[in-house]
Amino acid sequence: MPALTDFEAFRDIAKKVNNWGRWGADDELGTLNLITRQAVRDAVATVRTGRRFSLALPLQQQGVQTGMIPGRVNPLHTMVALNWEMFGPGAIATSDDVVTLGLQAATHWDGLGHVSHGNRIYNNRPANTAVTAHEGALHSGVEKAGPVLGRGVLLDVARARGLRRLPPGHLVTTQDLDAAQELARTEVRAGDIVLVRTGQVQLYLGGDRDGYGYPSPGLSLRTPEWFHAHDVAAVANDTLTFEIFPPEIDGLYLPVHALDLVEMGMMQGQNWNLEELAEDCAQDGRYAFLLSAPPEPFTGGVGSPVVPVAVK
Amino acid sequence: MPALTDFEAFRDIAKKVNNWGRWGADDELGTLNLITRQAVRDAVATVRTGRRFSLALPLQQQGVQTGMIPGRVNPLHTMVALNWEMFGPGAIATSDDVVTLGLQAATHWDGLGHVSHGNRIYNNRPANTAVTAHEGALHSGVEKAGPVLGRGVLLDVARARGLRRLPPGHLVTTQDLDAAQELARTEVRAGDIVLVRTGQVQLYLGGDRDGYGYPSPGLSLRTPEWFHAHDVAAVANDTLTFEIFPPEIDGLYLPVHALDLVEMGMMQGQNWNLEELAEDCAQDGRYAFLLSAPPEPFTGGVGSPVVPVAVK
Amino acid sequence: MPALTDFEAFRDIAKKVNNWGRWGADDELGTLNLITRQAVRDAVATVRTGRRFSLALPLQQQGVQTGMIPGRVNPLHTMVALNWEMFGPGAIATSDDVVTLGLQAATHWDGLGHVSHGNRIYNNRPANTAVTAHEGALHSGVEKAGPVLGRGVLLDVARARGLRRLPPGHLVTTQDLDAAQELARTEVRAGDIVLVRTGQVQLYLGGDRDGYGYPSPGLSLRTPEWFHAHDVAAVANDTLTFEIFPPEIDGLYLPVHALDLVEMGMMQGQNWNLEELAEDCAQDGRYAFLLSAPPEPFTGGVGSPVVPVAVK
Amino acid sequence: MPALTDFEAFRDIAKKVNNWGRWGADDELGTLNLITRQAVRDAVATVRTGRRFSLALPLQQQGVQTGMIPGRVNPLHTMVALNWEMFGPGAIATSDDVVTLGLQAATHWDGLGHVSHGNRIYNNRPANTAVTAHEGALHSGVEKAGPVLGRGVLLDVARARGLRRLPPGHLVTTQDLDAAQELARTEVRAGDIVLVRTGQVQLYLGGDRDGYGYPSPGLSLRTPEWFHAHDVAAVANDTLTFEIFPPEIDGLYLPVHALDLVEMGMMQGQNWNLEELAEDCAQDGRYAFLLSAPPEPFTGGVGSPVVPVAVK
Repeated sequence: MPALTDFEAFRDIAKKVNNWGRWGADDELGTLNLITRQAVRDAVATVRTGRRFSLALPLQQQGVQTGMIPGRVNPLHTMVALNWEMFGPGAIATSDDVVTLGLQAATHWDGLGHVSHGNRIYNNRPANTAVTAHEGALHSGVEKAGPVLGRGVLLDVARARGLRRLPPGHLVTTQDLDAAQELARTEVRAGDIVLVRTGQVQLYLGGDRDGYGYPSPGLSLRTPEWFHAHDVAAVANDTLTFEIFPPEIDGLYLPVHALDLVEMGMMQGQNWNLEELAEDCAQDGRYAFLLSAPPEPFTGGVGSPVVPVAVK
Repeated sequence: MPALTDFEAFRDIAKKVNNWGRWGADDELGTLNLITRQAVRDAVATVRTGRRFSLALPLQQQGVQTGMIPGRVNPLHTMVALNWEMFGPGAIATSDDVVTLGLQAATHWDGLGHVSHGNRIYNNRPANTAVTAHEGALHSGVEKAGPVLGRGVLLDVARARGLRRLPPGHLVTTQDLDAAQELARTEVRAGDIVLVRTGQVQLYLGGDRDGYGYPSPGLSLRTPEWFHAHDVAAVANDTLTFEIFPPEIDGLYLPVHALDLVEMGMMQGQNWNLEELAEDCAQDGRYAFLLSAPPEPFTGGVGSPVVPVAVK
Repeated sequence: MPALTDFEAFRDIAKKVNNWGRWGADDELGTLNLITRQAVRDAVATVRTGRRFSLALPLQQQGVQTGMIPGRVNPLHTMVALNWEMFGPGAIATSDDVVTLGLQAATHWDGLGHVSHGNRIYNNRPANTAVTAHEGALHSGVEKAGPVLGRGVLLDVARARGLRRLPPGHLVTTQDLDAAQELARTEVRAGDIVLVRTGQVQLYLGGDRDGYGYPSPGLSLRTPEWFHAHDVAAVANDTLTFEIFPPEIDGLYLPVHALDLVEMGMMQGQNWNLEELAEDCAQDGRYAFLLSAPPEPFTGGVGSPVVPVAVK
Repeated sequence: MPALTDFEAFRDIAKKVNNWGRWGADDELGTLNLITRQAVRDAVATVRTGRRFSLALPLQQQGVQTGMIPGRVNPLHTMVALNWEMFGPGAIATSDDVVTLGLQAATHWDGLGHVSHGNRIYNNRPANTAVTAHEGALHSGVEKAGPVLGRGVLLDVARARGLRRLPPGHLVTTQDLDAAQELARTEVRAGDIVLVRTGQVQLYLGGDRDGYGYPSPGLSLRTPEWFHAHDVAAVANDTLTFEIFPPEIDGLYLPVHALDLVEMGMMQGQNWNLEELAEDCAQDGRYAFLLSAPPEPFTGGVGSPVVPVAVK
């Protein structure tokens, strides 16, 4: 178990970043409330070239899951019709597919129901009644998030450190975020969706699925304070675990998840492929863009695959 | 079986709208090639208010599928972890979900591999080798489509006819498209994504799942000529069957599918909820908008759920 | 809510039939303990002709589920390989299938973890820790049941009443069981697996899926006393709900489930097709047989499909 | 590619063991026809002690599949209800589970539709119409097999060779089968279900999932002649691949599958756990027993999980 002081640090940050009640006792959206129409217009105003980037990894059996996370299965693609002349010989034929997948299996958003602590999810709702097997997330399900779209800002922590990729054990600190923001030459502001690049996804893209998952660079439990101070709407990165893994504090697992999802009510994205986008940003020096990243509206979902599209 | 003349009509249109080879013998994208960077910039330029609209129906067991289409199952949401203190008592807890769904079950894109005729899919590829059970669509799988985003134009056929909703048997003709275009006060142009509104989805939203599916208003087999003439990138509507059902020509099933997907190489969207967007367009008289609608990149997918987001 | 006296009746029966601790505090098998080797030998000794009967309904999309029970989906059969010459052109080809199904969707056993009341499953284990989303049934999972095989006895309640099929609202009482036992001309004894026939499955077999499910004849909450008195190992019948539905006591749902599964630790079978077997028993007057009915050993399963085989 | 002579050997055996038309042009059962009522009575007559053995491996995520066989996924167990008081607070609560699994993923039968060669499945049916994505196996689906139950005979090849487990590269020959039959002190006869033990499953049971699958001991392409000469009804063993893997003849993959399933119309069982049963047979010297092993009746299934139960 972590030393008392560590837990105290966690609790201290939790208090500071807590957003319960900020948008009303009934709120289910959390920091997505920060994406105003003005923020959307500002996002649109960043577009110059019209170049589009998909930040999603392919959804396939050889996905990022390796069995490390129990029950979180890679997408399985199956057919229920194959060039089927349903209406008779010579007719126009159809093919139909069915998939089974973990909603957090690939490039995804963690919904606010994904994590609880002390039997609480965001906005002080009791976890045991707010998330059930028959309904999923009764509150703050991903279907409530709506059309997540706003200004994206890439914080390329690896590049800010002069690295192609952060080493596995690298703890992404608030200083790292500051440095990456400086590199980006834009101020992260209220309603922004922040993409933190570690370069770790290169391992998966290069075929090293195990190495990608673990050990992983990732966010420090101090970073939620930074996101809170900037009133960020959502944060995503290019790792399996989002936060550093093994954890920063021995025995304290998933503190960033708890701070972001439970305390702040801020969705987290994982397994986002930021490589091509980062290359482009480095070339033109422009790190802000229009970002469309709505979760699939699975009723009661505590997560969702997403195809983030950046437009520059 | 339809009379010879009907088949001849179909074959005649097929020849006119055929795009095989237009973007090279290796092309897998079809009309998505028409979305240029300029088209994206034009799309962005339509944004005024920053208001966002999700055009997706919820993904849930009580979805639009009723068993009418064999094997196409509504999304089933299940849990593999529920407020699970994986790391010990008192630890931060996680919930994880897994879904099974037909890729064409809800608001979706038909990929170019979804339909074949005469053993051919788009760009003259033999259907029996281009789409298999173990690989899905080896060519033109939905994962190839990339970040589908461009200018969307709503053709509100129902409103152009002064109706809240087209009657079940209504055949949407090219004249209907012309009238709706006139209402929209914008010219549909190369690379646009056209949304054709019938109002039929009101039935589903009102709880009449069977009535929603069948009988349905829908597109005439003459409409592909219209889309081809305007060099449209993709077309979606608010019905289960896309084209009129029962079919326009007795015994000739899915001719619009064949023309759009196979001959033109143009993706079709179905079960899109256009109600809220249409209301807004009617109010401000602006029917063009930024539309982001990337398919989920299921490797080999012949279809994909999509969360279309319109921004005005 | 039911009147106090009704709850008292339930609690009174619960006390009488309770088997907690009977086979030790660690027991996970319940009444399956009653199938001794002698019982198996007795079962084998009933075989005369060598005629075999399958009591399973087909596993298919058009199964007995109609959506009445949330999340309990009919089997969906999909292909992941189809005549696939995996090792090259001309090679021997393979086809592979994948299914998704509710474990209680078709002919099945309810495992002892399927039901809890007062937060208890069989043998006084707290339900909230004994059955979880990440492990399923940690105790008394269906994989623990092992090779369920013993003497089966058909209690043909419909025939004993001179009916081809019991009417929908028929409550199967202990008097019904007595009469059917008399018809069977054998004494139900310790370790027997009892099959109670209502004839209700005829509705499903005849295409009336809705009528099959509801309203349904079924067992009275008095019958567990009868099963307990005879030390039956397991009970199955030919209905969707097992017990009468709508319930016997207004507002008291699933009391037989609670008595059988929780109090007695006795597995229940549902949706068993007893028609062909019953016909044969009526013809030769022999209602006891060898019955093999092992659940599929899904680790942590709270239910399992089963292919019961009777041999006479 | 194998030398011509090898293909000739295969074709020569194929002719010898071919059963097409033997039970009529419409037959879908193949060698299961050999299990007569007399054979069932003989099977029953082998029972002495009443001891039962389950030969099934647990159905779980950590199953025998490792990704070596594309699309064949281990069972995934999920919950759709968890101690759910569906009928109100304090009501009796239910838990329900849903699984997704490859039908050939664990202890299973290969159905006759599982393999084709030269576009033919058993009884000369064209594979491309007999097995489709929308119907699965239209002919000889596993649901047709019915209540597979008869006399089982264990041929313990490992023990006959004085080994606890055959080495990975061991080819099980007809001489091996003869020696094991001698050890068993019973003559394999028409309608028997033969279980061939290699001991390979010990690797899986010991945690070596990769080693279990490959390389594997297994049956020689000469063994179908032996099974045919004895008019065996079905054969199962304790390996992932059934036949030796890598294959006996370089470049000729799955010849035993083709001979057994296509030519003979004989179901094959794989991943059967024969360890406990073999121990018992060695102790009492009795290698014949009653065996119940009905496939789950998935309509159109080309395979099925099975819980084989042996009774001695």
